[in-house]
Amino acid sequence: MRAAIYRQGAIVVDTIPDPIPLEGQVLVKTLACGICGSDLHAAKHMRQFADVNKRSGRRWVVDPDRDVVFGHEFCCEVVERGPGTETRLKPGTVVCSMPITLAGAKVLGIGYSNEIAGGFAQYMPLAERLLLEVPNGVPATHAALTEPLAVGWHAVQQARLTSQDVALVIGCGPVGLAVIAGLRVNNVHPIIAADFSSLRRALAVRMGADVVVDPGEASPYERWRDAAIPADCDRSRYAQLFGLGAKLRPAVIFECVGTPGVIQQIMDGAPQEARIVVVGVCMEADRFEPFFGIVKQLNLQFVLGYTAEEFAASLRHIAEGKVDVAPLITGHIGLRGVKGAFTDLASPERHAKVLVDPWK
Amino acid sequence: MRAAIYRQGAIVVDTIPDPIPLEGQVLVKTLACGICGSDLHAAKHMRQFADVNKRSGRRWVVDPDRDVVFGHEFCCEVVERGPGTETRLKPGTVVCSMPITLAGAKVLGIGYSNEIAGGFAQYMPLAERLLLEVPNGVPATHAALTEPLAVGWHAVQQARLTSQDVALVIGCGPVGLAVIAGLRVNNVHPIIAADFSSLRRALAVRMGADVVVDPGEASPYERWRDAAIPADCDRSRYAQLFGLGAKLRPAVIFECVGTPGVIQQIMDGAPQEARIVVVGVCMEADRFEPFFGIVKQLNLQFVLGYTAEEFAASLRHIAEGKVDVAPLITGHIGLRGVKGAFTDLASPERHAKVLVDPWK
Repeated sequence: MRAAIYRQGAIVVDTIPDPIPLEGQVLVKTLACGICGSDLHAAKHMRQFADVNKRSGRRWVVDPDRDVVFGHEFCCEVVERGPGTETRLKPGTVVCSMPITLAGAKVLGIGYSNEIAGGFAQYMPLAERLLLEVPNGVPATHAALTEPLAVGWHAVQQARLTSQDVALVIGCGPVGLAVIAGLRVNNVHPIIAADFSSLRRALAVRMGADVVVDPGEASPYERWRDAAIPADCDRSRYAQLFGLGAKLRPAVIFECVGTPGVIQQIMDGAPQEARIVVVGVCMEADRFEPFFGIVKQLNLQFVLGYTAEEFAASLRHIAEGKVDVAPLITGHIGLRGVKGAFTDLASPERHAKVLVDPWK
Repeated sequence: MRAAIYRQGAIVVDTIPDPIPLEGQVLVKTLACGICGSDLHAAKHMRQFADVNKRSGRRWVVDPDRDVVFGHEFCCEVVERGPGTETRLKPGTVVCSMPITLAGAKVLGIGYSNEIAGGFAQYMPLAERLLLEVPNGVPATHAALTEPLAVGWHAVQQARLTSQDVALVIGCGPVGLAVIAGLRVNNVHPIIAADFSSLRRALAVRMGADVVVDPGEASPYERWRDAAIPADCDRSRYAQLFGLGAKLRPAVIFECVGTPGVIQQIMDGAPQEARIVVVGVCMEADRFEPFFGIVKQLNLQFVLGYTAEEFAASLRHIAEGKVDVAPLITGHIGLRGVKGAFTDLASPERHAKVLVDPWK
């Protein structure tokens, strides 16, 4: 089969052996697979990526000197069932799966593996037990957004939301947009969202942000504060009332940037007792001043991935129209386009989510 | 009155004007006042202390070039009532107070102020409304421990404890010991506590630790893991069961050291989904790797101080014998001893809490 392969620091298109489905596996062909920010990071800093994965105790480690086929945001079509499978899903059925597969008693990750090619290859050996059928009428390109949406949905589930919370989303790339979508499904209002890119701010509004801020022009934290004055409070007298102990609504701030320095920036801008949910994946060492957290009694909740239930819920949100993912898709490419897309995606004014069709 | 004063980088004993109680204030004489680790830090790094307080948005700022009388862990005796006070507390009554006072509509901190001398002075002007009477028979030296105990009690309140939690306390200085005392009052078991000092480990046992660890000899996280295997689980088969998804009891880890590097050490050692309560007050910039938090979905709760209710509860715990503070008191000094004690306290093998009697 054909695949876009990370090989010795470059992305190349080459032919590799077709996977053979093992016991309980189903061979699928990839219909659409999104490019994730973590793919870009891994391609650029593979040694560091492999190192921090290993040191932090992640289950799956990758050898940076061997081939890796990225791609963990996919929608596929059933081609052939391996031994010991049920007959539930017929060939031609369109399916999604969390990016893991089962091989005997072993759980294997898909997307950053030297053993199994991810969604930038034409075929994958998925675990039948993990397949979710995509409802009729939902395009494969939309269903491929299940995985990144699940990341946002999980972050929202972990945020311990209350009905009083005013949310602030820092960074409106695919992760921030998925968080905004999740907050809207959860009826959180208002949602304030900040990004330097006008394209991303426009997408934030499409996904459900009530207020968007360009941090180059105004402080997201000031905008948050304006929105967090309780409705029953005389706004013109608020500064005075605040001195008398009037309370702002609680803050829940989502860090969706994932580069060094952002956590400290948020700790600096955050109001007292804010809950900060760290969704951005910063893989480098970072600097922060704990005293800012102490003085404000901040809470930092780091999150990763999603549960099987959250993943299934995200597919339902797309299928039922609760989340419209169409605006997020800003590019469609074939395998030969992957290399260039890895460059283009560095510019936030051009793209949100680019989908790869390995048959194109 | 006489006071031990921080003046231009040194601790000196000198005479300063007696405070005059304002409207609603009561003049008290200090019976006993503990030396806190933050006092040592402030004396050694006053400019940095003043700077980080200011930048982090703390309400009270201190001018490092003017005199400061430290001391915020005190027990006092009512001497004289100012104007507009009730007659509730007669002269001679022994009292505690949170280290703040009220002056008209203003709230003023005590202990790091250029305006009001703290408990290393003979007299203070406390707010009558904030005074708590110390029950008969409780020595002033014990009641002076109310404040540091309240810090631990508050940390335990903020930890969102469940009945399944296994607690790990990193650092058994006065903060860690107060956390252990709070955990015992809250019936959390087992409590694992780690410190390099044998004196501190012995005190940890006195305060309620079930297991103590010298991190120079064994990993506190391994000891935690041993204790966190559920009781209904076959321990000899646990490694195997763990691979099959058996769960350890939840971890709540208290950071009670407060020096750079410790938060990352805990993020490195902590198990999946641990809640880390940061009670140690690190006032310097720190380095950490967010990815460790992400992979393990850690939660960091920074805490500071206590509420009025928590402060009152701590005095009750001492008075009712729920917490025996006697072992924590390792030294009694007068004003002339303060300078030397600031040096001695750097060694964890000699002291836990040193009390100053400004009349001695």
